[in-house]
Amino acid sequence: MNRSKALELVKPHLTEHRYVHTIGVTDTAVELAGKYGADIEKTEIAAIFHDYAKFRPKDEMRSIIIEQSMPEDLLEYSSELWHAPVGAYLVKCEMGITDEEILGAIKYHTSGRPNMTLIEKCVFIADYIEPGRAFPGVEEVRQMAQQDLDKAIALSLRNTVQFLMKKNQPVYPATFYTYNSIVKTHNS
Amino acid sequence: MNRSKALELVKPHLTEHRYVHTIGVTDTAVELAGKYGADIEKTEIAAIFHDYAKFRPKDEMRSIIIEQSMPEDLLEYSSELWHAPVGAYLVKCEMGITDEEILGAIKYHTSGRPNMTLIEKCVFIADYIEPGRAFPGVEEVRQMAQQDLDKAIALSLRNTVQFLMKKNQPVYPATFYTYNSIVKTHNS
Repeated sequence: MNRSKALELVKPHLTEHRYVHTIGVTDTAVELAGKYGADIEKTEIAAIFHDYAKFRPKDEMRSIIIEQSMPEDLLEYSSELWHAPVGAYLVKCEMGITDEEILGAIKYHTSGRPNMTLIEKCVFIADYIEPGRAFPGVEEVRQMAQQDLDKAIALSLRNTVQFLMKKNQPVYPATFYTYNSIVKTHNS
Repeated sequence: MNRSKALELVKPHLTEHRYVHTIGVTDTAVELAGKYGADIEKTEIAAIFHDYAKFRPKDEMRSIIIEQSMPEDLLEYSSELWHAPVGAYLVKCEMGITDEEILGAIKYHTSGRPNMTLIEKCVFIADYIEPGRAFPGVEEVRQMAQQDLDKAIALSLRNTVQFLMKKNQPVYPATFYTYNSIVKTHNS
């Protein structure tokens, strides 16, 4: 599937605002893939579809998480996390995309996971730093992404954890495990 | 065992500085126990012995963690965490203290754990806020401890996580599981 076909397919599933975000994530992810040597075509398709399930009703996402035996602890945390694994599932079922590397990058684009693949890292960080993003700390992560992808991810996770803890929100364990995995690799 | 006997027993195991800290933790923990209705005598003994293993050699602590089948993931994280479970073990073996509530408060005084007992909470937060402590954020936790023990613990864990992440240090899973357990209880 090429870029224009993929964009045509994802567009009806997104708001205009989210479609612009998706273009930003795609361009950023492709640039990072080129820089760090990830498969560019797969990264591009994963980025285009990363928010495929973003606007599905919560009830539909909850049902899919349960029926597809996804980790049910997801349901105890913010529903903002749900569209990532549910999106990977729906992109497979509805778009016929079966490449596990593409699906993995969609699945883990919000929480991350320990030992992410390069494609997963490119989509994860592109989602955080695409040009439309403007929140405290994003510029530091943007600059770090040009130097060290792992350190950029660690920084972004630190920002996310601080943001959640300031609001007294729980932090999904995969977020911490991803952070720990990166700092342990770099400290050892 | 009464206070003066316990202090006499713990003193040889501590530096002068740490002994003064221990007195501070004990007085603070006893005050919190009175305020929130925890068993005062047990809280006092737990607080007196909470840092019993603080100055044991790392090699001895590592051996005890392995031989006593304590969670071996401890060894992948800061050795600052080790003296708490090792302390509970040594206080049992060497001081003959077998009360599980006292031992639990020693064991979990650094990492915390989800669903801490009241004694555990009093010792945990007393260790953080005793009068000798002076670091950014401590005053906020001190004030919160007079209003809500759980919220004070959540605040202290937020500070600890921020401190570790700023230094690119890993965060021990029990620390964030403890945080999640508290905010989930209060948000639900």
